[in-house]
Amino acid sequence: MSPDELEARLRQIGAERYHNLHPFHHLLHGGALNRGQVQAWVLNRYCYQNAIPRKDAALISRIGDVDLRREWRRRIEDHDGSGPGEGGIERWLVLAEGVGLERDYVMSTHGALAATKFAVEAYVRFVRERPLLDAIASSLTELFAPTIHKERIAGLLKHYDFADDKSLSYFRKRLEQAPRDVKFGLAYVLREARSEAQQQGVIGALLFKTDVLWAQLDALHHAYVEPGNIPPGAFVPEDRAS
Amino acid sequence: MSPDELEARLRQIGAERYHNLHPFHHLLHGGALNRGQVQAWVLNRYCYQNAIPRKDAALISRIGDVDLRREWRRRIEDHDGSGPGEGGIERWLVLAEGVGLERDYVMSTHGALAATKFAVEAYVRFVRERPLLDAIASSLTELFAPTIHKERIAGLLKHYDFADDKSLSYFRKRLEQAPRDVKFGLAYVLREARSEAQQQGVIGALLFKTDVLWAQLDALHHAYVEPGNIPPGAFVPEDRAS
Repeated sequence: MSPDELEARLRQIGAERYHNLHPFHHLLHGGALNRGQVQAWVLNRYCYQNAIPRKDAALISRIGDVDLRREWRRRIEDHDGSGPGEGGIERWLVLAEGVGLERDYVMSTHGALAATKFAVEAYVRFVRERPLLDAIASSLTELFAPTIHKERIAGLLKHYDFADDKSLSYFRKRLEQAPRDVKFGLAYVLREARSEAQQQGVIGALLFKTDVLWAQLDALHHAYVEPGNIPPGAFVPEDRAS
Repeated sequence: MSPDELEARLRQIGAERYHNLHPFHHLLHGGALNRGQVQAWVLNRYCYQNAIPRKDAALISRIGDVDLRREWRRRIEDHDGSGPGEGGIERWLVLAEGVGLERDYVMSTHGALAATKFAVEAYVRFVRERPLLDAIASSLTELFAPTIHKERIAGLLKHYDFADDKSLSYFRKRLEQAPRDVKFGLAYVLREARSEAQQQGVIGALLFKTDVLWAQLDALHHAYVEPGNIPPGAFVPEDRAS
């Protein structure tokens, strides 16, 4: 495949498999979830947010080139910030407080679904263990993120009392960060993936990553949308109907 | 805790969290699943079966004591056999053929749910990375396995055409193997887990393992019992109603 053909294939994966297509997101963005269900989403997704800097550090730990390390380091800085009260994970915790969750409880991840943790840790390990090119390619779901963030901001603002500039600051900030990050990542992948084996590796990595995202929503949907399915030990909303 | 108290705590975890309590097993053993749903269970569970010798090898790779290595090696032999056509995984493939699946398709794991793979690989890595005592303790769900295997053999024989001595040979064999294995594992854990930290580690390991099993059934239930939820790329039964 030429670089253009490879890019088209990657974008096709997003069009067919990115988690903006998942029913749970339709419910979330359409205002169909109650408070407890939104809380379940926020506290499970925290596990994912908090894993991002770990997977980026795992990736940097494998890079010999100082320029590439420096470029990638910005992602850790974006999420962890440069001091207390800064960074994307802090903004996620502000969202968590906005939906009525206690910060310490969210950070403990005690209430998160086991399936969330299995999916998230599979991602960290993929980046730690697979070829560097595949590890970088697995970040390319960001190609599809701005659309979902815009949908989400509009949908949450329209439908939920908790939504305001403060609670949604995570998503606004990602609208600036993700396009910059993914521009670099996409250029890297299209430049480096020349052999058929490399291109298939890149495609497999993006499919894997869409699975990681989709599986998290499947688990949420099963546990918190369909009644009676919350697994032993997982978060039980105090008031499912509020 | 005394060894007896620790054993009681471990058995309590089984009574509260073992996957014999999961609704999917009630459907399976009660004859409420159609052919496609049974196929989905068999082909997903293959991923778990095929991971067991890998996790046992990971465990052996960390053991300095030759007696303990020798004892544990029997588990790999049970699953992998000593030649083509032998062992528990072969018996699982016989079951797969019995329910109408192609052996090569099952072995490819192409149709298995991503969530199954995430849970199964989390187990392999737990055994590879956590303290040896916790890794051994995570095998203690076998304490609760004979009951579910007996229920399963009786339920499958009663309700499904595919069930006969040949297709169910995996479960009959496990009725001999699991009690022997778990007797050793339980004695080891009760002898070695003396400090409170060790005992909490052991309890956490068994909770983790029940999560691994439960999450696999949650994913099956979501994808194949509730309509319209099969994730992109996963097995689609040819005839859901047969």
